[in-house]
Amino acid sequence: MAASVPAEGLQLRSLVKKSGELELSLASVPVGEPAPDEVVVRVEASPINPSDLGLLLGPADVSTLKAAGTSDRPVVTASIPDQFMRAVAARVDEAMPVGNEGAGTVVKAGSSPEAQKLLGRTVAILGGAMYAQYRTIKVQMCLPLPADATAADGASCFVNPLTALAMVQTMRMEGHTALVHTAAASNLGQMLNKICLKDGVQLVNVVRSDEQTKILRDIGAKHVVDSSKPTFMEDLISALKETGATLAFDAIGGGKLAGQILAAMEIALNSKPGAYSRYGSSTHKQVYIYGRLSTDPTVLTGAYGMAWGVGGFLLTPFLQKIGFAEAQKLRERVAAELKTTFASHYTRVISLREALKPEIIAAYNKRATGEKYLINPNL
Amino acid sequence: MAASVPAEGLQLRSLVKKSGELELSLASVPVGEPAPDEVVVRVEASPINPSDLGLLLGPADVSTLKAAGTSDRPVVTASIPDQFMRAVAARVDEAMPVGNEGAGTVVKAGSSPEAQKLLGRTVAILGGAMYAQYRTIKVQMCLPLPADATAADGASCFVNPLTALAMVQTMRMEGHTALVHTAAASNLGQMLNKICLKDGVQLVNVVRSDEQTKILRDIGAKHVVDSSKPTFMEDLISALKETGATLAFDAIGGGKLAGQILAAMEIALNSKPGAYSRYGSSTHKQVYIYGRLSTDPTVLTGAYGMAWGVGGFLLTPFLQKIGFAEAQKLRERVAAELKTTFASHYTRVISLREALKPEIIAAYNKRATGEKYLINPNL
Repeated sequence: MAASVPAEGLQLRSLVKKSGELELSLASVPVGEPAPDEVVVRVEASPINPSDLGLLLGPADVSTLKAAGTSDRPVVTASIPDQFMRAVAARVDEAMPVGNEGAGTVVKAGSSPEAQKLLGRTVAILGGAMYAQYRTIKVQMCLPLPADATAADGASCFVNPLTALAMVQTMRMEGHTALVHTAAASNLGQMLNKICLKDGVQLVNVVRSDEQTKILRDIGAKHVVDSSKPTFMEDLISALKETGATLAFDAIGGGKLAGQILAAMEIALNSKPGAYSRYGSSTHKQVYIYGRLSTDPTVLTGAYGMAWGVGGFLLTPFLQKIGFAEAQKLRERVAAELKTTFASHYTRVISLREALKPEIIAAYNKRATGEKYLINPNL
Repeated sequence: MAASVPAEGLQLRSLVKKSGELELSLASVPVGEPAPDEVVVRVEASPINPSDLGLLLGPADVSTLKAAGTSDRPVVTASIPDQFMRAVAARVDEAMPVGNEGAGTVVKAGSSPEAQKLLGRTVAILGGAMYAQYRTIKVQMCLPLPADATAADGASCFVNPLTALAMVQTMRMEGHTALVHTAAASNLGQMLNKICLKDGVQLVNVVRSDEQTKILRDIGAKHVVDSSKPTFMEDLISALKETGATLAFDAIGGGKLAGQILAAMEIALNSKPGAYSRYGSSTHKQVYIYGRLSTDPTVLTGAYGMAWGVGGFLLTPFLQKIGFAEAQKLRERVAAELKTTFASHYTRVISLREALKPEIIAAYNKRATGEKYLINPNL
């Protein structure tokens, strides 16, 4: 099996140039020789998560995408508006590999028994640089998949599943008793519904269309409110009164939604008799922004007293905070429920070369609900 | 002395009517007979802090202020825009007393030795309902002032001094090492500068004019940046690089400033070699909004990675969090430095009746730097 591993493989690179240009390309990089505790994985499935797009495209203006290079070695460029260059100053002129997670086959193994044991197995990896044909990585970073699971089955078994579990865990750790989630019909949102239904946690789903409402109703969601409806605020307030949710995870980020959720929480809290205080409810209301489906500025009106917070939320620091043992419990739950609670569905599988086509970039960058792209670097 | 206490006294009331009207008036209320552990204080000085204006005027449109009533019993009304009525639903039709803090003379005392000991003393109180001629209150709520201090000297010895001390304490508790403060030339901002100079804490002052810069330079401030200058962002970034501040207290609330501070912190953090991460700096950057000098929406662009937070900050929950013993240390420091670090200056002393004049309301509601109003309810 080791004989089938070439000396070099393609790796997708994202480069921000000082000139204000983003350049995506495929680099031929040596396949690293595995150390005793390492394996070489042929990557067969790596999803394009919203969290990957930040590194992949940065703040580039996708309407300026231009194809260059050859069909074998495509290059695509886009311009970055001046005002965003400062935010990416630290990555200028450094071609960065992309792709948080993925899965594939172990095609070469280091000399240790742990590494040898993985030879031929399909494993999932959360390790970065997964938009590549080969990835040399430590054994402990590999999650061996059940025998009946394909690389595609296991490609998304870290970011979305662990993030959904982290939301419920954060709710418990920070003393809240119910949750709000936006962009709630997403792949992650559906997982969160399944977790909450299983664990008996009340969840208010915020969606933007009847179609999304239906997706969630079909999997058993109880509270679904549609922000595109004129009755949105009333519907949200009434769901918040019913559930008592004071913590929200917002994937949209930009616009008014985070502030509307805080305002609705405040109104729901103040609707209890005797709750009025000159500074608003003393119950802390929190929105964590974990995605930026909208890159508009976040607009907060401040109509929610003084006991509120809005902040960024990211999986890795959360896992570091809870520590290895707690994080391991979450990972084990994902493995156990891979084909049920944490099943992912993809609308399209693309190659590395296709991932650099302007029209395909424009499509996956839309981040439309129900549309999820999977890269197979060995297509 | 007890003979001089009338049966009733005037008390300022703020009422939000269901009709969407704010009404300020003076009510004649009985002077409470003191229990054994209580005293009656003749209030002689109570400041109009920004934190009082929220309860006093609510979300009323001050351009619609109209005088009514008689010269002896003035009434003033203003309309509240529809969209804000929901936020004040819980206080509708309840006439609320106003005034967080103040000072005055103990004119009647309950039978306990502790109460009797205060008779004739000038005391400061953080107790609410201070825009009133008389206030019956527990002895333990009274801070006796030094013999050479007037009621005006002690009128503001809680809200601003304790808030300034709370900022420095929060910095230490949350693991930051330097501070940013906006509206920095305010009464509170000047106190904060004096505290930081004394305690060796680096402070970045954000102001809006040359005049405010001068006020702070004159008291020894090292880092002053002016948000009205074209070089503001560069100046702020360079002050943040120098100080390493990752915590800001923002009195403005509305507009772009909180987001600009987070963005500047992120740039300062990323300017260190090797700091780049795909999700931005992993150092947590925090802005606490403790005032709303601007009632515009807060606009956050999100150009600061994922390790950030914006939230409300209020003195009372902070004091509850640190507990009585720690809070007492802060109070004792205020008493010890009342005429130095924590000295307040007022531009105008007004009566309760003047406090209800539309043109005077418009003036104190401007919350202009260097302008601070003091109410003497017994004028």
